[in-house]
Amino acid sequence: MELFDKTLGEISEANKEIMNETRERWDGLFKTIGGLGTLEELSIKISGMTGKVSNKIDKKAVVVMCADNGIVEEGVSSCPQDFTVKLTKTTLQGNTAISVLSKFNGADVFVVDMGLLEDIDDERVINKKVSYGTKNFLKEAAMTKDELIKAIEAGIEVADKFYAQGYDILGTGELGIGNTSTSAAIFSIISDLPVEKTCGKGAGLTEEQFEKKKKIVEAAIKLHNPDRDNILEVMETVGGYDIAGMCGMYLSAAKNRKPIVVDGFISSVAALCAIKLNENTRDFMIASHLSKEPGASALMEELGLEPMLDMKMRLGEGTGCPMTFRIIETSLYTLENMGTFADWDLKPSVLVDIR
Amino acid sequence: MELFDKTLGEISEANKEIMNETRERWDGLFKTIGGLGTLEELSIKISGMTGKVSNKIDKKAVVVMCADNGIVEEGVSSCPQDFTVKLTKTTLQGNTAISVLSKFNGADVFVVDMGLLEDIDDERVINKKVSYGTKNFLKEAAMTKDELIKAIEAGIEVADKFYAQGYDILGTGELGIGNTSTSAAIFSIISDLPVEKTCGKGAGLTEEQFEKKKKIVEAAIKLHNPDRDNILEVMETVGGYDIAGMCGMYLSAAKNRKPIVVDGFISSVAALCAIKLNENTRDFMIASHLSKEPGASALMEELGLEPMLDMKMRLGEGTGCPMTFRIIETSLYTLENMGTFADWDLKPSVLVDIR
Repeated sequence: MELFDKTLGEISEANKEIMNETRERWDGLFKTIGGLGTLEELSIKISGMTGKVSNKIDKKAVVVMCADNGIVEEGVSSCPQDFTVKLTKTTLQGNTAISVLSKFNGADVFVVDMGLLEDIDDERVINKKVSYGTKNFLKEAAMTKDELIKAIEAGIEVADKFYAQGYDILGTGELGIGNTSTSAAIFSIISDLPVEKTCGKGAGLTEEQFEKKKKIVEAAIKLHNPDRDNILEVMETVGGYDIAGMCGMYLSAAKNRKPIVVDGFISSVAALCAIKLNENTRDFMIASHLSKEPGASALMEELGLEPMLDMKMRLGEGTGCPMTFRIIETSLYTLENMGTFADWDLKPSVLVDIR
Repeated sequence: MELFDKTLGEISEANKEIMNETRERWDGLFKTIGGLGTLEELSIKISGMTGKVSNKIDKKAVVVMCADNGIVEEGVSSCPQDFTVKLTKTTLQGNTAISVLSKFNGADVFVVDMGLLEDIDDERVINKKVSYGTKNFLKEAAMTKDELIKAIEAGIEVADKFYAQGYDILGTGELGIGNTSTSAAIFSIISDLPVEKTCGKGAGLTEEQFEKKKKIVEAAIKLHNPDRDNILEVMETVGGYDIAGMCGMYLSAAKNRKPIVVDGFISSVAALCAIKLNENTRDFMIASHLSKEPGASALMEELGLEPMLDMKMRLGEGTGCPMTFRIIETSLYTLENMGTFADWDLKPSVLVDIR
């Protein structure tokens, strides 16, 4: 509990003064004021994190949190449960979507065992296993309070280590069959939205299976009936180790005042958990894409973030991160390298600010 | 007129058979079926253009069509008219947004003088000047029929040359103070939408100036009252040389069966003109971002394209292209390099297709 409490205590909001300085610098560049929209806002947001107007990304990584979910035994997923381990192994081989997307865009990929059913004999796996999968939350709480804190602290430790190693930005990914059910359950409880609006067909459920999934998630919420204002209780009863691990990563990013990319539905639910623990963590999050999961828009609204990619993706793994990294790097590079109004002996005030 | 007619005659639709082959290949990769959304559709669309399942982008360029617009003398823009030439010169120096964004993302930038008020003494400028700016369309037609065809053919020639030189993809950009007025006028006529829905504040108009701009565009439409089904008449009366040049580029892309990126409001209006000339050109277009110009959503709907970036940009110049190129390259690379279900001795049919 010590690292968890200490981390929460060390988080503070973004530096608004530096953000204004960065915005002023953009306004001096030879272009329509505010005309690059989100591309400007990205570097402004990052300057508020680091406290510097100029920032650069040299090292970037996607961290994939891998864990199994006990609820899968109820038949909520179209994928066989052993796909979690198979996909983890395939990621290590460099052959999953997240491996390939990251390689093309110059990002490293790290795999964390947060709670796989099997042990993978590969020294590249970061072993943070809390236990061999969560419990079936239709019958009992997914995990104990101790297990939850251990999982969150594992996420903090992993991200702390990477930021200390010089990674300028991290992205959050996950592999965990059944985790659209755990995340939909958490989101339904926090937002008070019916499961009809938060559940999706995941990797590919039939209509019949989909109806069953919604009934199971609904029944579990009713069974545990956690206090929606007690986020730890919510995560403990219906969450997963992957979600808890990503939540810890967000806390670490905010503590270290470094950017972190929120990607996809499950990663976004984890981000919402982090915000509930400390509102200031939002200042350190950048949303990648709008997932095709049905609840994605409502989730982004609840998060208060605006994703920059609209690509109908619903794969997870962190697959929006590598492309988002590139766009963020483009933002930082553009701020440093464009010509100015002053180059033409002009003042920016020649144009009206219509933002 | 010869090149124009010949080009139109040589355009045919995408190869649907190859597109299906490419989709099947995606469905064999070890992931949720259809889970990468637009990232899958990009390579599928390109395969329909080239007739090959596997494609690669080695050379890419943004072509910036530069031209002045006579309507500026009515005060429709907040920018001084000489900003067209200043921005063109700054692009050659490598200091505009499009120069910097392209450099970071590995794309070349080419500048075409389609009708600047001034001659720029720089051998890097591709000289296709039709005349020194269009006429003021509040008083007379912006250009003659001959000038329009000359401008479209210039666009065809430029793109033909680049595709012949081995460029695998081109993006369309523009510089032309006043061109949110010309493009709004064209779009209003084609779509029958009121100027209230097609005009925006451009680079930064005050409310008062904005009201004036809408009145001028409305008056011009009333004055010329072109037949909305005669796209050449529409472009001739209220268009611009930049729009005509980009329209020619789209025709060239379709003829050469190569991809071309549609970027921003003005570029999208030019794309709509090309589609009106030949419906099949749509098959060769990829939309980059949803512009913040008020009419952008309606325009994308009319075009039948879905942009992948949602970044509130409204700068023009082709600034969405460089980031879009990267995403397209990511798509092509991912298709070639991911592991398959077969690697695990599985069949894709283990998952249900819920697309």
